[in-house]
Amino acid sequence: MIKYILLLFCLVVYTTGQAQDSLFIGTKHHLHSAILKEKRSYRVALPLNYYNKKYTDSKYPVLYILDGEMAFDYYVSIVRFLSKGVYASIPEMIVVGIDNTDRTRDLTPTRSQKRSPDDSTKILFTNSGGGTDFVQFISAELAPLIDSAYRTSGFTVFAGHSFGGLAATNILLNHTDLFNAYIIHDPSLWWGDQYLLKQSVTRLPAINFHKKRVYLSQADNEDKGSFDEHFESIKSFAHICDSVNNKTLTFKYEFYQNEDHGTLPLPAAFNGLKYIFDGYAVNFKHISKDKELLIKSYRSFSDKMNFTFKPSRPMLDFMIQYFKDNNKPEEAETVTQQYKYFYPGFRE
Amino acid sequence: MIKYILLLFCLVVYTTGQAQDSLFIGTKHHLHSAILKEKRSYRVALPLNYYNKKYTDSKYPVLYILDGEMAFDYYVSIVRFLSKGVYASIPEMIVVGIDNTDRTRDLTPTRSQKRSPDDSTKILFTNSGGGTDFVQFISAELAPLIDSAYRTSGFTVFAGHSFGGLAATNILLNHTDLFNAYIIHDPSLWWGDQYLLKQSVTRLPAINFHKKRVYLSQADNEDKGSFDEHFESIKSFAHICDSVNNKTLTFKYEFYQNEDHGTLPLPAAFNGLKYIFDGYAVNFKHISKDKELLIKSYRSFSDKMNFTFKPSRPMLDFMIQYFKDNNKPEEAETVTQQYKYFYPGFRE
Repeated sequence: MIKYILLLFCLVVYTTGQAQDSLFIGTKHHLHSAILKEKRSYRVALPLNYYNKKYTDSKYPVLYILDGEMAFDYYVSIVRFLSKGVYASIPEMIVVGIDNTDRTRDLTPTRSQKRSPDDSTKILFTNSGGGTDFVQFISAELAPLIDSAYRTSGFTVFAGHSFGGLAATNILLNHTDLFNAYIIHDPSLWWGDQYLLKQSVTRLPAINFHKKRVYLSQADNEDKGSFDEHFESIKSFAHICDSVNNKTLTFKYEFYQNEDHGTLPLPAAFNGLKYIFDGYAVNFKHISKDKELLIKSYRSFSDKMNFTFKPSRPMLDFMIQYFKDNNKPEEAETVTQQYKYFYPGFRE
Repeated sequence: MIKYILLLFCLVVYTTGQAQDSLFIGTKHHLHSAILKEKRSYRVALPLNYYNKKYTDSKYPVLYILDGEMAFDYYVSIVRFLSKGVYASIPEMIVVGIDNTDRTRDLTPTRSQKRSPDDSTKILFTNSGGGTDFVQFISAELAPLIDSAYRTSGFTVFAGHSFGGLAATNILLNHTDLFNAYIIHDPSLWWGDQYLLKQSVTRLPAINFHKKRVYLSQADNEDKGSFDEHFESIKSFAHICDSVNNKTLTFKYEFYQNEDHGTLPLPAAFNGLKYIFDGYAVNFKHISKDKELLIKSYRSFSDKMNFTFKPSRPMLDFMIQYFKDNNKPEEAETVTQQYKYFYPGFRE
């Protein structure tokens, strides 16, 4: 069916013959999940260099985000913005957005017992508590599919907002090693009588996070009211995270005074990504003063991330060209030599 | 040619037959400019409700941005993010990105006399100073085309970064009435021995801006060096703008300590748009306490903007449905009545 709609669309665009091209941001895919027993869709955006013939062996980290239908576009544009050029703050990444079918079911770790404030015989969120199956879907079905379809490096980031932040916190606490870093926006930690917050008191200090990085953002919810438990539970969680910070977990919490629950996730996605990859950017012009700059910077960044990162090949190519164009053959030669160090076998 | 490439592309997508749909963000268009004597391209993203059959009479503000090939994607995702839902911070807008051909020529107001620091016989930016023609292209060719092709409301915002910020400042000072609001990021006000900064000293206090809104952002350029003039000229410009603030111009300046010249424009686009439309959001649930809330809010917002804004029809429809669903028929009736006030002739 999709094929025919697509063909029809293509023909319409073709035959109207306007001088108009479509601008794409990514692709939407479908798979049948045996675990969830339903059809699921997800979105994929590849790095702009992904199909560049010079770099077809390059591998990329993957950023998984929840609420794909809402968050995919802005995460993609933020990732592309921050990973562009030689002064990039983060590496080029593959962005995978997971679309919802039954959001409450998938993103909550326990079955709700919450009664409606208007009618105490009514239980709210009756279809909740499917979190374990959903995590299983991601780890056993979706991620292996992504890893087989694309050139992934093995480094992964997971991001979620609200119920999605609750799901991300659940993975951090109970499936810790699934991802290398977590970006959590205004998570619904009030859920289930603060189920995850209570768990975090004992689990956070006990887990060896192996230098995982966690970014937690919180909105200033002006109209608190029933949001009080929401607000306070995040504050408490931040406090507990902070107490284990710098042991095996690297953690940053930011409070956004000018954002509410709805406007928070975009600026916090930007700042979260910058935090997760803090130390990635290198001012390559300083190579003139310190020949070993690239090697030392990437060694120290890799150590900090507990994962081997290299300067990207487009970046190295740019540097060499820059130094050649600016009459600095020594620096050009230095980078050329280090190219071989980072990518043995290339540019011999 | 484009037609054939597009057809080829469509056939490839069709025949590979993967369960994969393309995700679009907008369209790219071409026109021949008689003023610039060259072919130009621009990008357009329409509001998600633009083709919704219920709202085919709705009109939208237009956001024009420079550096279309770099800035379009993130402006579109920010506009969609901030204009979504009933708590939207900004109205749905048409985003038009203007692509570059000769960026230096188009975005600079004067011909450069600057000599190369390495070779004083060399003049830098020899092809500069085409700003006047470029502004003419926008006002006499591009904007009329946009207004005839799309349902525009007449309210326009103009945004630019770096040389684009210089161009935006030039329009603000010398073609003031072309746009209703300006978003200016780290503008290159060092240009031409601070040509525009000097102009602003006399022009800013003399112009009647008719309540135009201007948002100016500045990056913390760590590696100042030759950026000193850049840095200081923006500081001075902010100071002058501030002195006329609240007379006929409404002005906000923000300094971004954590951003450099390259990372600034995305977060500053987000904050700039929020500032320009500050006061647009209404907490509609308060209608229960104040029946006239919508009318008063939009009257005061329109007055502040010197332009008539109305709550969007999707927003009003949502409110009515919300109140009906939540057993508040009085509020539903209030909004229904006000629908007629804002849109006489509809929903009779």
